[in-house]
Amino acid sequence: MKTPTTLEALIQALRCLPGVGPKSAQRMAYHLLQRDQAGAGHLASALVDALTRIRHCNRCNTFTELEVCELCANPARDHRTLCVVETPADLLMMEQTLAYGGLYFVLMGRLSPLDGIGPREIHLDRLLNRAQDGMIEEVILATNFTVEGEATAHYIAESLRSLGIRSSRIARGLPVGGELENVDSGTLAQAMVERRAL
Amino acid sequence: MKTPTTLEALIQALRCLPGVGPKSAQRMAYHLLQRDQAGAGHLASALVDALTRIRHCNRCNTFTELEVCELCANPARDHRTLCVVETPADLLMMEQTLAYGGLYFVLMGRLSPLDGIGPREIHLDRLLNRAQDGMIEEVILATNFTVEGEATAHYIAESLRSLGIRSSRIARGLPVGGELENVDSGTLAQAMVERRAL
Repeated sequence: MKTPTTLEALIQALRCLPGVGPKSAQRMAYHLLQRDQAGAGHLASALVDALTRIRHCNRCNTFTELEVCELCANPARDHRTLCVVETPADLLMMEQTLAYGGLYFVLMGRLSPLDGIGPREIHLDRLLNRAQDGMIEEVILATNFTVEGEATAHYIAESLRSLGIRSSRIARGLPVGGELENVDSGTLAQAMVERRAL
Repeated sequence: MKTPTTLEALIQALRCLPGVGPKSAQRMAYHLLQRDQAGAGHLASALVDALTRIRHCNRCNTFTELEVCELCANPARDHRTLCVVETPADLLMMEQTLAYGGLYFVLMGRLSPLDGIGPREIHLDRLLNRAQDGMIEEVILATNFTVEGEATAHYIAESLRSLGIRSSRIARGLPVGGELENVDSGTLAQAMVERRAL
């Protein structure tokens, strides 16, 4: 027996979602058809809406429906600091801390030469232009502490240094509530090296 | 900062997929917008196609684009045996064994009173009608060996018995290549109870 082609096409289309293999795609397709046709309809129209309406902010590069996103357009934010993050999800996490009142630049990725992601793909030229607007006094690099995130931070720091722009990196160390016994030795070693005077 | 509402709507819509929570929905939305807009477009149209074209086979209840699916319409199949499975995925698994040449009935679920899934939701009346077509000689119950699958099989067997229709259950026991040392004791106990004469 042949699976109907429309069903095959749906299963194949669901595989464009990250982390969805053939088995989950099949399960999702059956679930939508059998238990949640309304949800499937909403998903289809939400996808079309998103594809037509969502674009990148001209200033910080995050997703928005406007030319310049609400955060960049907010005069109450501190326009002297620019925090560089990898993804819009990282931006949201940072906002949830309520510890930062400046502006952002979203790379939409990290340097990863093996995947073909170089300086152009992370919009380095736009970031450098953005940092030279005459207002920015400090660029805070808040990429992940993965190998690729670290390499990205160092590459950007070098580029900024050659333009005479000051950059900093968010701190590494033990997490709040962390116990020495349970932390990995790399983190503990870094926490020792980067200790602060009290 | 507010996430743009179209983006929020997409993230919310993705959560109708089984196994997708808020974090994965966000990751999926960002991935589609940033890396795979073509995939998102295909997914939207595949969903619309599936919703408009796919229906249930009048005979076996599986998903199809036809009145009666190709398998039910195939005269080369053995029209005297009817294999009852929970889902179309189970039907496909059974077909892949090449060990069965009869027809199917797909329950599209299993009895689960706590989830509001009773005899009506698994289309028991249609199954009983189907089994009384005058051709069917044996109904093979191939629901899962979970608590709910077992209960479903017993309920269907009782209903068939009251109509004088013979039913059987697929065998329980050690898997092919299975070792006694590694099998759970419930399976081993059942394999002992259901031993066959050689």
